[in-house]
Amino acid sequence: MIIADGLVDAWLVEDAPFGDLTSDALGIADAPARMRFAARAMGVVCCIEEAERLLVRCGARVRREQASGDAISSGDPLLLAEGPAETLLRTWKTAQTLIEQASGMASAARRIVDAARAVAPSIAVECTRKTMPGGRALSVRAVLAGGAGMHRLGLSESILIFPEHAALQGGWSALMQRIPALKLAQPGRKIMAEAKTAADALALAEAGVDVVQVDKMSPAVVRELVEQTRLLVPRPLIAAAGGIDEHNAPAYAATGCAVLVTSAPYWARPADVQVTIEPA
Amino acid sequence: MIIADGLVDAWLVEDAPFGDLTSDALGIADAPARMRFAARAMGVVCCIEEAERLLVRCGARVRREQASGDAISSGDPLLLAEGPAETLLRTWKTAQTLIEQASGMASAARRIVDAARAVAPSIAVECTRKTMPGGRALSVRAVLAGGAGMHRLGLSESILIFPEHAALQGGWSALMQRIPALKLAQPGRKIMAEAKTAADALALAEAGVDVVQVDKMSPAVVRELVEQTRLLVPRPLIAAAGGIDEHNAPAYAATGCAVLVTSAPYWARPADVQVTIEPA
Amino acid sequence: MIIADGLVDAWLVEDAPFGDLTSDALGIADAPARMRFAARAMGVVCCIEEAERLLVRCGARVRREQASGDAISSGDPLLLAEGPAETLLRTWKTAQTLIEQASGMASAARRIVDAARAVAPSIAVECTRKTMPGGRALSVRAVLAGGAGMHRLGLSESILIFPEHAALQGGWSALMQRIPALKLAQPGRKIMAEAKTAADALALAEAGVDVVQVDKMSPAVVRELVEQTRLLVPRPLIAAAGGIDEHNAPAYAATGCAVLVTSAPYWARPADVQVTIEPA
Amino acid sequence: MIIADGLVDAWLVEDAPFGDLTSDALGIADAPARMRFAARAMGVVCCIEEAERLLVRCGARVRREQASGDAISSGDPLLLAEGPAETLLRTWKTAQTLIEQASGMASAARRIVDAARAVAPSIAVECTRKTMPGGRALSVRAVLAGGAGMHRLGLSESILIFPEHAALQGGWSALMQRIPALKLAQPGRKIMAEAKTAADALALAEAGVDVVQVDKMSPAVVRELVEQTRLLVPRPLIAAAGGIDEHNAPAYAATGCAVLVTSAPYWARPADVQVTIEPA
Amino acid sequence: MIIADGLVDAWLVEDAPFGDLTSDALGIADAPARMRFAARAMGVVCCIEEAERLLVRCGARVRREQASGDAISSGDPLLLAEGPAETLLRTWKTAQTLIEQASGMASAARRIVDAARAVAPSIAVECTRKTMPGGRALSVRAVLAGGAGMHRLGLSESILIFPEHAALQGGWSALMQRIPALKLAQPGRKIMAEAKTAADALALAEAGVDVVQVDKMSPAVVRELVEQTRLLVPRPLIAAAGGIDEHNAPAYAATGCAVLVTSAPYWARPADVQVTIEPA
Amino acid sequence: MIIADGLVDAWLVEDAPFGDLTSDALGIADAPARMRFAARAMGVVCCIEEAERLLVRCGARVRREQASGDAISSGDPLLLAEGPAETLLRTWKTAQTLIEQASGMASAARRIVDAARAVAPSIAVECTRKTMPGGRALSVRAVLAGGAGMHRLGLSESILIFPEHAALQGGWSALMQRIPALKLAQPGRKIMAEAKTAADALALAEAGVDVVQVDKMSPAVVRELVEQTRLLVPRPLIAAAGGIDEHNAPAYAATGCAVLVTSAPYWARPADVQVTIEPA
Repeated sequence: MIIADGLVDAWLVEDAPFGDLTSDALGIADAPARMRFAARAMGVVCCIEEAERLLVRCGARVRREQASGDAISSGDPLLLAEGPAETLLRTWKTAQTLIEQASGMASAARRIVDAARAVAPSIAVECTRKTMPGGRALSVRAVLAGGAGMHRLGLSESILIFPEHAALQGGWSALMQRIPALKLAQPGRKIMAEAKTAADALALAEAGVDVVQVDKMSPAVVRELVEQTRLLVPRPLIAAAGGIDEHNAPAYAATGCAVLVTSAPYWARPADVQVTIEPA
Repeated sequence: MIIADGLVDAWLVEDAPFGDLTSDALGIADAPARMRFAARAMGVVCCIEEAERLLVRCGARVRREQASGDAISSGDPLLLAEGPAETLLRTWKTAQTLIEQASGMASAARRIVDAARAVAPSIAVECTRKTMPGGRALSVRAVLAGGAGMHRLGLSESILIFPEHAALQGGWSALMQRIPALKLAQPGRKIMAEAKTAADALALAEAGVDVVQVDKMSPAVVRELVEQTRLLVPRPLIAAAGGIDEHNAPAYAATGCAVLVTSAPYWARPADVQVTIEPA
Repeated sequence: MIIADGLVDAWLVEDAPFGDLTSDALGIADAPARMRFAARAMGVVCCIEEAERLLVRCGARVRREQASGDAISSGDPLLLAEGPAETLLRTWKTAQTLIEQASGMASAARRIVDAARAVAPSIAVECTRKTMPGGRALSVRAVLAGGAGMHRLGLSESILIFPEHAALQGGWSALMQRIPALKLAQPGRKIMAEAKTAADALALAEAGVDVVQVDKMSPAVVRELVEQTRLLVPRPLIAAAGGIDEHNAPAYAATGCAVLVTSAPYWARPADVQVTIEPA
Repeated sequence: MIIADGLVDAWLVEDAPFGDLTSDALGIADAPARMRFAARAMGVVCCIEEAERLLVRCGARVRREQASGDAISSGDPLLLAEGPAETLLRTWKTAQTLIEQASGMASAARRIVDAARAVAPSIAVECTRKTMPGGRALSVRAVLAGGAGMHRLGLSESILIFPEHAALQGGWSALMQRIPALKLAQPGRKIMAEAKTAADALALAEAGVDVVQVDKMSPAVVRELVEQTRLLVPRPLIAAAGGIDEHNAPAYAATGCAVLVTSAPYWARPADVQVTIEPA
Repeated sequence: MIIADGLVDAWLVEDAPFGDLTSDALGIADAPARMRFAARAMGVVCCIEEAERLLVRCGARVRREQASGDAISSGDPLLLAEGPAETLLRTWKTAQTLIEQASGMASAARRIVDAARAVAPSIAVECTRKTMPGGRALSVRAVLAGGAGMHRLGLSESILIFPEHAALQGGWSALMQRIPALKLAQPGRKIMAEAKTAADALALAEAGVDVVQVDKMSPAVVRELVEQTRLLVPRPLIAAAGGIDEHNAPAYAATGCAVLVTSAPYWARPADVQVTIEPA
Repeated sequence: MIIADGLVDAWLVEDAPFGDLTSDALGIADAPARMRFAARAMGVVCCIEEAERLLVRCGARVRREQASGDAISSGDPLLLAEGPAETLLRTWKTAQTLIEQASGMASAARRIVDAARAVAPSIAVECTRKTMPGGRALSVRAVLAGGAGMHRLGLSESILIFPEHAALQGGWSALMQRIPALKLAQPGRKIMAEAKTAADALALAEAGVDVVQVDKMSPAVVRELVEQTRLLVPRPLIAAAGGIDEHNAPAYAATGCAVLVTSAPYWARPADVQVTIEPA
């Protein structure tokens, strides 16, 4: 995916609506300069193409050394930009923060994916829609670059029945009776439902939902649910959600569930990117 | 400060461009419902007014129990909303994520402020402009609610000379000769400069900059610089930056510096907010 | 679902960026006036809430007599608005065109749904993403009001493999080998694929896709495919697409397929709404 | 005219806010590919330049074979694009739908123009402002490409007195007394008025309006009005409006009126464009 | 006309993207306060409704004492607002500048209208499209409030042939031959053309254009042209443009021309509005 | 600084949302043409780069002869553009008005700067935030090109205590007691305050504000204040504001104050730019 031009422009305006006052005040705006971005740690780089676009839109010439999703090690060059000092100084931190935050999220997603797949090679890892308001495009970009998927892009495109939906329809048993009709009415989408208890989870599985999402249950409980639902036809997928991170991902992956659902990458610490600027 | 209507609307569209499909598919969109938000941990609440506006704009009636900046404890009620199920289910997570992320940042900022002021009651704590691209308004809102200030809102409104600026003007000594002229040219703004070494910091102080920002120096080095510059007229302020967080804030505050500059709140873990929804 | 404020405002600006010149030139802008909207034909009304918002935002008092999705007959009152003449004359055609176009689409969708369900009461009818560029929100609103669903809201939220995707992966047989892995990698989404020939359709069903979409095949061919795939485990759903409208919907519905996919409502003739304006 | 960049970008985001999930999931995003657009029917092509821009903005190389307004026949090549598979698959339907809808409108406009001018070679054909809310730029683009004009671009730029305006000024006779003053006050714009009856039309002509628009009158009535007003000085133009389409355009054109006003192109069926995609 | 909400919001964000730092820093944000706007000079007030909306959107209660277009004298009250100090201090200058600039333009327009109509009571005064980029809505609002009209709202809605158009069509005589066809093709719009010489002006009049606009000619030359064209059938209107202001308007009005075209109001000095703020 | 793409596009759409109707109606849209911009008076040119971008975005080839901030004399070439007639005719006035208005403001700012510095070579000249609503970016661009600075970019980034703030905190003496705490709390910003009387000004200086802004005081009073505050430690800067323009700037500059604050450039008469268009 790519980020729309309007968003890239908005990022620039956000930080420098009237240019870099310091460069202007020092009278160095037109001095030819060179800026290098390099990785300071291992991980997955992301939004380097958007950083390139930020720079190019402001008048720099750029050589990009990596692509979003690439694994990088400390010292790896990322971008080399040349242009007038004001251009480089104005875009510097916006580009750096962008790469750092997106790469931090991407790397965190990758670590969870790697941790889970070391145990269950075919397991899926998906991130929630709990992105910072206004930051979904950037967050989705990072999650995908990290090799995870998006659980849901939003409320309008998928069916996930929460206990709160059930409560408003008279409780889980009333709701479960509607599952067959719901499956007919939504032939192109899976019917997913979230359970807070193991009993609800099993009942939902037996009621025919396609994906049973269990919230904040221990790996042992998840594993038992996987076992209990193994022979149902069609067999429901079990999704484990709630507090999943790179540390407990192997334990959950070992349960045999189909997918881990996590928000952890969204508050990952930004990756560390080194930037050097010098006269050209 | 308040967040503009356009941004509030954009947050809604981002998550539910075409409504809550699950509510629609279940046929519960019009069921009367009630939703409560309550704190699950201590901290500082933020963006609760914007959450209220999200809900009101979608047709809910809302009672707000706190204001941004208020200290909250686990169990404290935050918001009570009533309206059609689709309204509540559609805005639920957007409002929850908004409060959680803003309150997480505000609480983190408050912890640093409290940690620093326990040692140095008049010290200022300011956050950097390294906010998530597209998220500056939200981040500034949170930082201010937490009792910190903004170091800079962006590049266009303040003068902060980085070593990179100096390099493009022939190095620090060439640049320092320009400080007097710069002060005349920018009478309404302080001249700030960032030093990477103690020697540069002292030289900048002697060259007359208003604020010397030191990057990634130990508290001991900062303390020595504060001592060395105490008798300069006018006395420069020392700002400590680089890796400052709630743990090392007391040590830096004890150096006698005027301000701590930090980005740590931006990657704070979201606060935990409990939401309950039930038929009304 | 509701339409965002920004879009409602944009509709107003589009037609009357600087007000109604005629009212201004005649000097009648402030005359108190009354405007009534009534149905001129049977069908399903849509976007009447948005029309109400258009009017209210410009200063009118409005009584709304129906809700989107309601069945209406000729003569049924829809809206009654009162306010200054300029307000009513400025919003008149925008509100009228909005209701007419949305209701036209909603009514067309409803006719296809009714035609199909008369034959197959549980069949789903879904509309494509071939909406007028810039008009997706309005079109989705209308389709849902008409009782149909959206096949896909866009490219980012669902998996639909076109023959063009297959060609870029070495042809259908290469692609079909990837289906099992794809199902594991996308546990929350159905795997849909479109076939141009009956042979491809059957092969896709046997390869395990969840939904086989057949493009421009006759009802007889679709029926045969439904029969051929009835005993596959899990049984794939058959979606009929390509040229489906209210006239041939019964024939396709009778094939036993699970869903009809259609773009026909998007070029439906607008519904006819009568507007009367008079002094108040 | 051209469509603004912001709108072109919005069209892309509308359909693929986070890219083509299918391409990504299949791992074919980077495969080199080629896409051809060709006409499947006769007509007038439109928005092919905007389709080209959609593609170029996403990274494709494009050769455009026609220009908006060109007459095309079945089989005529329109566009040839090359680039990574994800680029082509992501823009495919947006570009196709754009060309199909704009060309459908342009072709419909052209058919009305041709039908009318076969009878009255100098007659003007103009389209109303009853465009889909949010779609005016696209619709105007198509109408102009089809050789018709725009009756009014909106409410703010022209004077068209409806009976509703008259009613708010005390009726037609009160209003007609204001025509001379109105002409002086609006020297750069024609005074147009719409009549629902032949008597009103004649009275308006005698009162000195520049253009008398008659709504839903038969060709015979229009013809008589043209005759009755032929010798007035200055001679008013007669505009026929209300239900005009390609079938009755000749009859109306034969009345001697100056202009046909129509909304019919806005609900024309989209033109049929063939798209083929293959590995490059 | 009214200004769209989005523009009103943008004005607020432009001046106070993150609130009034001074109020926040002083800790007076919540103090109840009262703000009064009053006229300091005679003239025409404008955008007072938009100022009211600015205030209301930020949480103030407002009483408005005048309407756009009203004549005001020094000391006349305009607005009274009450609310929290931060609300009033944040919107103060934006509202004040808005009223001052719009009223300055409106008053200047009114002075030209009054000056011209003292000599020629039926003459029209129209303002050009040379508004500040980005400021057309505000400028049109002011011009209309001042009693002038808009010559053109932009390039897309009217026909004004400049000598530059003529040059690109082979010169004025080639162009003049097209006038009859152009009149047929554009039945709803007047054909206007601008002449740089008296000879061109006369020729254009004889060629049948509806309005001959003369640029930077003396009143004597304009008068002569009016005389020379008085007996043409249909008689063309003469529009005088180029350097027209309140001082020379009477002389131009005395020529018998139909309309004065001016840009002078756009650089009028803002009106002077007094604002007082006090504790409530 | 540069102006964002979105704003440049908005300027184009504002004037020509549907192209240049005159060019289209005359059938000259595709004729190759050449357009030259040249200065008609001395001054400082501004926004010539944005004019270039306007033209390039519409398809012209452009050679730019000057840069924003350059001093120009009558006859100096500014831009040479080539392209299809419609491109040039559509962008002509938008580009011309842009350069004229921005250059008018820049030239006015430069005249004040020059007038002041002829007397006090190191004095700063800064412009207020009283820009036309919606026009801040353009105005700031012009002010900076003219060699002046921006006093404040808005309310959120600086501390300027008005008497109105003081009144809401119990009057100046209550407020002055807070100055020391305010300086500690805002270490990166100067504390500025505006006085309406000489006595308040002196008191503020003694209370320790960094900058005392005096409003509408005579040069003699300002001079006396400068003298009275010369020996304070730290010595406050005196800023003279209120009615300052190029005529009285020398008198105020001679007072020894540090900065002149003015809004005068914002209502400067636009510069005069000659545009010629001819066939290419």
